[in-house]
Amino acid sequence: MGSNSNFGNKTFKDLFPYVDSSSPVTAQFLNEVANKGLKYITENNNRDTKVVNFKTPEELEKLIDFKVKEDPESLETILNEVDNILKYVVRTGHPRYFNTLWSGADITAVAGEWLTTSTNTSMFTFETAPVYIMMEKFMWNLMCNLVGFKNGDGIFFPGGSLCNIAAINLARFRFNPSIKEEGIFGQKRLIIYASEESHYSIMKGAALCGFGTKSVVKLKTDPSGKIIPEDLEKQIKESIEKGDQPMIVVATAGTTVGGAYDPINKLADITEKHNIWLHVDGAWGAPCMLSSKHKHFMSGIERADSLTWDPHKMMGLLQQCAFLLVKEKGLLHRCNSANASYLFQQDKTSYDVSYDTGDKTFVCGRRNDVFKLWLYFKSKGMKGVEEDINQCFANSRHLAAKVIERDGFELLREPECANTCFIYIPPRIAAMPKGEERDRELKKVAPMIKHRMTDRGTMLIAYQPLKEHLNFFRMINANPGQTFEDMEFIVDEIERLGKDL
Amino acid sequence: MGSNSNFGNKTFKDLFPYVDSSSPVTAQFLNEVANKGLKYITENNNRDTKVVNFKTPEELEKLIDFKVKEDPESLETILNEVDNILKYVVRTGHPRYFNTLWSGADITAVAGEWLTTSTNTSMFTFETAPVYIMMEKFMWNLMCNLVGFKNGDGIFFPGGSLCNIAAINLARFRFNPSIKEEGIFGQKRLIIYASEESHYSIMKGAALCGFGTKSVVKLKTDPSGKIIPEDLEKQIKESIEKGDQPMIVVATAGTTVGGAYDPINKLADITEKHNIWLHVDGAWGAPCMLSSKHKHFMSGIERADSLTWDPHKMMGLLQQCAFLLVKEKGLLHRCNSANASYLFQQDKTSYDVSYDTGDKTFVCGRRNDVFKLWLYFKSKGMKGVEEDINQCFANSRHLAAKVIERDGFELLREPECANTCFIYIPPRIAAMPKGEERDRELKKVAPMIKHRMTDRGTMLIAYQPLKEHLNFFRMINANPGQTFEDMEFIVDEIERLGKDL
Repeated sequence: MGSNSNFGNKTFKDLFPYVDSSSPVTAQFLNEVANKGLKYITENNNRDTKVVNFKTPEELEKLIDFKVKEDPESLETILNEVDNILKYVVRTGHPRYFNTLWSGADITAVAGEWLTTSTNTSMFTFETAPVYIMMEKFMWNLMCNLVGFKNGDGIFFPGGSLCNIAAINLARFRFNPSIKEEGIFGQKRLIIYASEESHYSIMKGAALCGFGTKSVVKLKTDPSGKIIPEDLEKQIKESIEKGDQPMIVVATAGTTVGGAYDPINKLADITEKHNIWLHVDGAWGAPCMLSSKHKHFMSGIERADSLTWDPHKMMGLLQQCAFLLVKEKGLLHRCNSANASYLFQQDKTSYDVSYDTGDKTFVCGRRNDVFKLWLYFKSKGMKGVEEDINQCFANSRHLAAKVIERDGFELLREPECANTCFIYIPPRIAAMPKGEERDRELKKVAPMIKHRMTDRGTMLIAYQPLKEHLNFFRMINANPGQTFEDMEFIVDEIERLGKDL
Repeated sequence: MGSNSNFGNKTFKDLFPYVDSSSPVTAQFLNEVANKGLKYITENNNRDTKVVNFKTPEELEKLIDFKVKEDPESLETILNEVDNILKYVVRTGHPRYFNTLWSGADITAVAGEWLTTSTNTSMFTFETAPVYIMMEKFMWNLMCNLVGFKNGDGIFFPGGSLCNIAAINLARFRFNPSIKEEGIFGQKRLIIYASEESHYSIMKGAALCGFGTKSVVKLKTDPSGKIIPEDLEKQIKESIEKGDQPMIVVATAGTTVGGAYDPINKLADITEKHNIWLHVDGAWGAPCMLSSKHKHFMSGIERADSLTWDPHKMMGLLQQCAFLLVKEKGLLHRCNSANASYLFQQDKTSYDVSYDTGDKTFVCGRRNDVFKLWLYFKSKGMKGVEEDINQCFANSRHLAAKVIERDGFELLREPECANTCFIYIPPRIAAMPKGEERDRELKKVAPMIKHRMTDRGTMLIAYQPLKEHLNFFRMINANPGQTFEDMEFIVDEIERLGKDL
């Protein structure tokens, strides 16, 4: 606690803007905070550090003084409480944190966020965020070129779910622009087609946009988890026969669980024929396009109408960084604009008001999510970014090879994106005859192993059921700082934690 | 540029996670970045610093090297480019930045964001964000107590617009839960009532949710900008006569332009009688509840069904910090849940899974927006927060008094929230006879003054038209670091910039 005591009984009243144009206490306080952040990040990168020092909700309520008092608390007290909090935070930047579709903490992204914070702004107008608006413009050019959208456009949303929801809304607008004003009350049922393994935001979006979840037709997938194009043809035909209106097909590039890439070209053949919007949810898997080795998974992407991409997932860009690319420039604006006179004055004379981007979305203020993304690309160059992506993919394949080798482990699918799904069967259960009782026992294994790894804090990895599969582990390689040795550690540790079950 | 050259030709390859568990370069790099952030914030707090060093889009493209190369760039180059960028960023934390409904940069919030970045997480499950989930729980208790929601709940959304949209969606779900599955195709037109001065997110939300903007009935306001309750009664009657279904009334607590508070108690009398959802959009004005002096503006708030509140506005909490409070606990979950098995495993054994909050919303990953808010409250105490709010309100009233005193200035409305709307009429135009030509000339004044202040960089303030009023200035007091002297500066500077027009 040493350095915190240097603050004596100073409080927020000793910080900007409560003191005049020089404030050594502000400098001391923010330096202290930056050092705590840096120390935390440094510990993350030591594999001997525990991933989590797990406490239950009830324990945390006792360990941390959450209560807000009537009077200010001293800066020393605040910083001591910060130290306390940092003890119990889950280390998602640790190379043994595998629990979610994002992990790691790219240092250039951390730098970008710290500067984003210091230069707080909102991305609705050029006059409020001139440099960052230009950065976004640059980024959409880069990304549209990569994808092959010759006259495309882009915008950040706070997360991939909202990108998908925005795409559904765009598809509806293109189908019938008068719906923006009239609503869908008098319409035929508008249909959204998506893989049975698609992300749940499609269901949530269907509900939010007024279609209802019943408007989502789930398409069958093959054993590798890809949409079967013939099923799409069949479902479209059935919709039309029922008097419904096909509106949008959502292909997934890198499914949440299995990491499958839907066959974009084959789906585009169908959507083009029927004049249906083709959206690709690449929230997780789109970064393969940055790798000459793996971009084939998304061949045909230039035929899509829109694409979701979350750099806060595989690229380590920190919550939140997600964007939607749209093939047809101008559509985002026509679909979402409300022309608020308090923000988008058309008689401004300092600059061309077409640089005001705020009316391209259904939100108003938008966080600056571009600075860190630009710094990431700028500092790594296209080659460095490609190496990051290749490392994530290589790790998932290395783990798959280890899983195949090792007794008691079974690989569920060959990896496409950087997911590796596998099951662990302890010797006692392996010896049981196949059947209901074995299944019942097997289903308990992954939750028990998860409980034990949480207690030990050695790593965190997710488990879940899917279709006919009982609880299995879903390994995600989102952090290029993870190594082949880390992949081997996973297999060893699961065996160590579960072999007696 | 001095210290940046210490990095020699080091690149991202010298940072975590590309190097082993000790990385002096990472420490040096992040320290340098923190120092740049701190220097920027310190300059903000010097009134002699220009608010903006304005460059057009074309100029910025020449001044900043946005291009991403094939190879990595050195850390020195990156940091030099950061220095360059910081020259052209608009200083929204400067006490003379008055341009938007948010400004200032609370230092405890900066600290919270830096630590949020360092401990990057997503708020969907307790296992991924244990401390922060508990912090949110604490915050909802505090806020629900303040509002008088005895069994309420809350959730952060990325901005007030999405909070309002979420409220509209909740109202629909409570009206008829089967709509979540069925959609609204077969329904009567569902009607949203809102002030003609309400925020544009109501229109955008109506379009997104499938109602169409035609489903929004704009209610008449009195000269102070408040909804006229009799007009609501009349409009509800008309909707019913037309065969439409009244669904939600949106009252605004602190309108975007004029800062008016709609009369909650009178509106609640009507919504309770007709069993219509009452939502209060307090994105801007809700902080008055933290002040014993000003909370009367929102009396009756405990009768509302939901409330939007953006601490990133008046409280200086930095983009993004916005939440929705809901009176009926459990409704957020029932309305939005999709029960994804990959995230919300019900057979987890380490903790009570009711702490997993991710299914309470239609987004998936959620940024940690609570740490900074909690630090703000914790370090200031309820008394310090109240002082901040009172300062913002006092500033707006001081400016109104100065505007009334000064020749050539006209106050449009008595301030309620911390907005001051006024017009400046230069002597030449004041001497013109009233009529079209005078109006035409007067309309050009505010844009010209805005252009000149942008060039000089002395301050930034927004102008706009509203109803019968030509372009006028809308002053916003969102930064408690602003003083009465700053208010006097506004009047002086506008006169200086515009008296020859």
